Amino acid sequence: MNFSIAIIGTGNVAWHLIPALEDAGHTITEIYGRDIEKAEQLTGRVYEAEATDDLDFSESKAEIFILAVSDTAIVELADELILPEDSILVHTSGSVSLEMLGYSSATYTGIFYPLQTFSKGREIDFSEVPFLLESDDQTTLQKLQKLAKSLSPIQYVVKSKDRKALHVAAVFAGNFTNHMIRIAEEIMNRQGLDFEMLKPLVIEAVSKSLQLGAKKAQTGPAIREDFTTLENHYQFLNYNESVAEIYKLISQDIIDSQ
Amino acid sequence: MNFSIAIIGTGNVAWHLIPALEDAGHTITEIYGRDIEKAEQLTGRVYEAEATDDLDFSESKAEIFILAVSDTAIVELADELILPEDSILVHTSGSVSLEMLGYSSATYTGIFYPLQTFSKGREIDFSEVPFLLESDDQTTLQKLQKLAKSLSPIQYVVKSKDRKALHVAAVFAGNFTNHMIRIAEEIMNRQGLDFEMLKPLVIEAVSKSLQLGAKKAQTGPAIREDFTTLENHYQFLNYNESVAEIYKLISQDIIDSQ
Repeated sequence: MNFSIAIIGTGNVAWHLIPALEDAGHTITEIYGRDIEKAEQLTGRVYEAEATDDLDFSESKAEIFILAVSDTAIVELADELILPEDSILVHTSGSVSLEMLGYSSATYTGIFYPLQTFSKGREIDFSEVPFLLESDDQTTLQKLQKLAKSLSPIQYVVKSKDRKALHVAAVFAGNFTNHMIRIAEEIMNRQGLDFEMLKPLVIEAVSKSLQLGAKKAQTGPAIREDFTTLENHYQFLNYNESVAEIYKLISQDIIDSQ
Repeated sequence: MNFSIAIIGTGNVAWHLIPALEDAGHTITEIYGRDIEKAEQLTGRVYEAEATDDLDFSESKAEIFILAVSDTAIVELADELILPEDSILVHTSGSVSLEMLGYSSATYTGIFYPLQTFSKGREIDFSEVPFLLESDDQTTLQKLQKLAKSLSPIQYVVKSKDRKALHVAAVFAGNFTNHMIRIAEEIMNRQGLDFEMLKPLVIEAVSKSLQLGAKKAQTGPAIREDFTTLENHYQFLNYNESVAEIYKLISQDIIDSQ
């Protein structure tokens, strides 16, 4: 089943989603950007799509409208959009309730949340991306399932409350693991050491964590309660109060959650 | 060049190193454990090696003695070991100085630090493990380089001071990424959600971080300075003060280090 789809937004999610949807056989009718130049850049990624900075979609041929914008912009844009009869409006956010689309002019609403981290300059294989779906309307939910299935075999129907919890977990699992690597990079750079040395460790630590479960996989001075090393590391980090404090708190939490 | 090697210690590093050394053509002469039963368990992993709980190695045929014990036990054991003439004593720790072996009865001392996280129940491919080596004696350093080369093509000569800095970085890159995954697991479990859903995100986040560099790879509410979501997440986590505090501190550090 192929859909006609309008994309509202020009960020990282839109950047990756737009060509993937076209490759899966769907038609991108319009791409909306507050900044029309950004929308025009994105139309270049597909065969045929119109760039627009007008929120009046009453004449649009799209059936599904995907709001791929920052969480803070969702409600405002949802309220201002003028949508055609029988249209479905979905957003792609992990942390915004379905209810937030309740005052839009859409006939049906839903969630179409790709649980992945998107950056320009990094290809995404959508066939490995889980899609988290939600709608109060069964027919809409089925359509979203078909749309998701055209991109990926992995999909879940998840209520807003659970999706929000999952989004907090995703911040730890994605953004915060990345920040731990960031801090490690800075320690290495500051010492004039090549971060390359640490890459096999990162890969093994994360692979092991996913295979054995993180509790069983833990090693290092905190889990060994090696307070001499913990204190030495804390002292070493005193050039950056915030990083030293992060070291202390996480080490204590590792000790406490054995 | 093949060596005769005695292993002092029965922990995770010894567990993985012993069969790898034998596979590389070296001879394991003795395996020491304070608890001899543990040493005997380890002798089962190689063709021929003697289990012992005696620190007197004056009659040993080993040339290289590898201290693979916890950081806190290194100095005590190093001092108590009775080693034969012309022996080389090394330890495998990231955070203990070379000097700490200075009062041992070894003729030569050095560091033989495999920069990896080791757990039983998880196979290690030593050919991808970087070895960090150090010795004040050139001939000893060359021997350690040959020994490391028999296990892995990746090796670096690193001074104690740099190795200690690197070890702090390794705690962030390995142990703390693992703990972020641990916290994510617990949030999912508490909500009755399957952690499996988050695995593609973890894999992509870490791969992206290593490819683009963690600064460029960062996404999520903190880097977007989406304070509404940050506050919601913080409130959500109020059932666990320590985890809520970790959330707050890391988010702030992401914002501050843009």
